[in-house]
Amino acid sequence: MEQPPSDQPASPPVVIVGAGFGGLAVAKALAGSDVPVTLIDHNNYHLFVPLLYQVATAALSPADIAEPIRHILARYPNITVVMGRVAGIDVAGKQVRLTEGDPIAYGRLVIATGSTSTYFGNDRWAAHAPSLKSIEEARTIRTRVLEGFELAERSSDPAARERLMTIVVVGGGPTGVEMAGSIAELARHALARDFRRIDPTTARVILIEAGARLLTAFPENLASYAQRSLERLGVTVMTGHPVQDIDATGVSIAGSHIPAATIIWGAGVRASPAATWLGIEADRSGRIPVSADLSVTGVPDVYALGDTALCLDAAGQPLPGLAQVAQQQGSHLGRALRENLLHGTALPPFAFHNRGNAAIVGRHAAIFDFGGQRRLKGFVAWLLWAAVHVVLLVDFAQRVRVSLQWLWRYLTYRRGARLITVPPRAPARQSPQ
Amino acid sequence: MEQPPSDQPASPPVVIVGAGFGGLAVAKALAGSDVPVTLIDHNNYHLFVPLLYQVATAALSPADIAEPIRHILARYPNITVVMGRVAGIDVAGKQVRLTEGDPIAYGRLVIATGSTSTYFGNDRWAAHAPSLKSIEEARTIRTRVLEGFELAERSSDPAARERLMTIVVVGGGPTGVEMAGSIAELARHALARDFRRIDPTTARVILIEAGARLLTAFPENLASYAQRSLERLGVTVMTGHPVQDIDATGVSIAGSHIPAATIIWGAGVRASPAATWLGIEADRSGRIPVSADLSVTGVPDVYALGDTALCLDAAGQPLPGLAQVAQQQGSHLGRALRENLLHGTALPPFAFHNRGNAAIVGRHAAIFDFGGQRRLKGFVAWLLWAAVHVVLLVDFAQRVRVSLQWLWRYLTYRRGARLITVPPRAPARQSPQ
Repeated sequence: MEQPPSDQPASPPVVIVGAGFGGLAVAKALAGSDVPVTLIDHNNYHLFVPLLYQVATAALSPADIAEPIRHILARYPNITVVMGRVAGIDVAGKQVRLTEGDPIAYGRLVIATGSTSTYFGNDRWAAHAPSLKSIEEARTIRTRVLEGFELAERSSDPAARERLMTIVVVGGGPTGVEMAGSIAELARHALARDFRRIDPTTARVILIEAGARLLTAFPENLASYAQRSLERLGVTVMTGHPVQDIDATGVSIAGSHIPAATIIWGAGVRASPAATWLGIEADRSGRIPVSADLSVTGVPDVYALGDTALCLDAAGQPLPGLAQVAQQQGSHLGRALRENLLHGTALPPFAFHNRGNAAIVGRHAAIFDFGGQRRLKGFVAWLLWAAVHVVLLVDFAQRVRVSLQWLWRYLTYRRGARLITVPPRAPARQSPQ
Repeated sequence: MEQPPSDQPASPPVVIVGAGFGGLAVAKALAGSDVPVTLIDHNNYHLFVPLLYQVATAALSPADIAEPIRHILARYPNITVVMGRVAGIDVAGKQVRLTEGDPIAYGRLVIATGSTSTYFGNDRWAAHAPSLKSIEEARTIRTRVLEGFELAERSSDPAARERLMTIVVVGGGPTGVEMAGSIAELARHALARDFRRIDPTTARVILIEAGARLLTAFPENLASYAQRSLERLGVTVMTGHPVQDIDATGVSIAGSHIPAATIIWGAGVRASPAATWLGIEADRSGRIPVSADLSVTGVPDVYALGDTALCLDAAGQPLPGLAQVAQQQGSHLGRALRENLLHGTALPPFAFHNRGNAAIVGRHAAIFDFGGQRRLKGFVAWLLWAAVHVVLLVDFAQRVRVSLQWLWRYLTYRRGARLITVPPRAPARQSPQ
């Protein structure tokens, strides 16, 4: 087990923190070059977050949407992968400190640490309303939804049954819309015949949004199409209803309390604490302001991209927190750093090319917004969405597996991953009434 | 949500506790008949335990080897599934008490609650050496093995590295043999190129057995073939070494201590506590003695089968704790109860037909014992084993999925489910030295 020379490179490496869409794209753009690269992530896998809602609703298994980072990059000897959690950044000494183990020196540092959920100061809501940011959370949601039906089947109290079969999704963005549609389909199709005392098709799925309409990032006609599609699936859409409280019994909105056993939080997103690590000022959402070349203003040799960066487009508007933005920024920055480090070329400015913003609404409906007047909705949009997402999945084996599972599920309405494997909730959560 | 008549059947149902191979076979034999059946399990899925070691070694996902019980039985209106945990049995009142919810009255009761691991009185070993009985344990083992390599890659202390890359499997039965072989292959093939500082192919996999040889349930020549196959894969086989202690640092055997970060317990099995529920005497392994017709001696209308029953064959020997025994007993008892309840036919005695006892030793070697002199070993045995296990999997969709994944893995040596998703161990466990 001798340490090869790459362990102590002559020049400090390009260190990338975060192996999401952005960080991984930087690594891939530098892969196979003479630039030493170290990629740090606290997970050992790259997670295909846009399909996480399908794990939460029992359509896919975690391994279908996650790929070991080492495996993706195994054939590039210039890339070292470190599984670790960042504790801080020493800007003067040019080092990344981890919670365990030696600090990692950098020549250039790319911060691609994404975003987390925020409960707007109501952190105690988190225990009752998990968000959808990690495999663990997706598994928790899956367990709560399925467990609700199991407990309802066993209960003879009509009020308890109704509460157990009520699922509230908070937040009318793409995550909330996709979750609500997918849960409604789970109840109406996959589970329809499985119970004897309850009728899963009578489950209530409620989507609550504080603003005046769903999907504010999309044009109005696509958003109202999405709302109609959800309502056809049986989802109750409540716009203009800010959530006032969430506890073990359910969700409170102005003037009423909705008893619900499963609550899913899709309302708030906040950038990673990277600004704190760097000791610089962030914007209201915690994002780091970056220049057109994605360098962090005032901090030499540090770059940021994706959800954790505030990057303005040509019109002075912030780029949205989308996978395609992070991926394009990552590819751009990786290529730019390679040319800069090997040939001294100046870093060119980044320009975003909108490849279409999509949301899926149930089994055969989706909306696509390509900017301007170019839009698509319905079954063709769903097919396009499905095709794009299968192609985007990083690994060939996954592509085969996910395609087959989708096809199978599409033909049979079945869900293959309907397992309750998280330890059950404490009795207090199970029957608080 | 009116309760259908089947909710309050005229005659109390056949209640089956446990949806393993035995309990599920009883339910299937009664499916579609006029006999009301209630099947109770504390999980919502039937688990294909013989393939659990492949989940623990990242070859398969949990959903590949688990199928929702409701889904399996959805089309039989005479069968009700209850997700619940048994607290006790009221033999006089003919009721099964659950830890939550109303008790369930039975006309006949079938106990098919299987077995659990036992640490022979050393329960504190469990935290350091998980066994392989549940999806949660399989996930814990997968995480510890993979995390060991990650921590070793980050460590610069040779002794710590060696400990992190040492995996000890305790127990030379089929579970221990299959785990050791599968982990050796994971390290030697799937992970071989993924690291930069460590060489995963130098990982130590040690199989410790207290007895004089491996696989005592198999003929000697098959067992020694299995040992040679394991050693070819790089496994160190230590027979005649009873374990004296297990703690966070490793495993102690007579005269020496083996520092190891991952320890897997495959040594002891004990029947479920069903004898306690019934208030009757069990044998040394906790099994309930049953008559030839599988009825529990002295307890009217109660039957037991599978790992939790002590059932003697024609020669007066106890039948082994194998899936095929439980499955044959379940089918036999289900048919017998149907004829008895509908036509008053007496319960016939059960006779076991040995369909072959198998163990797999790595990617293309297995052993098969059909009784007498009929034996098989090597690649053909592996092919037979693979074919049998694919066919045995309960659900068609799973069959397709598992076949494809196996084929893929076979062609590429890859592991699709290599995710570290259990919360990491406390620092004390990570670097106790």
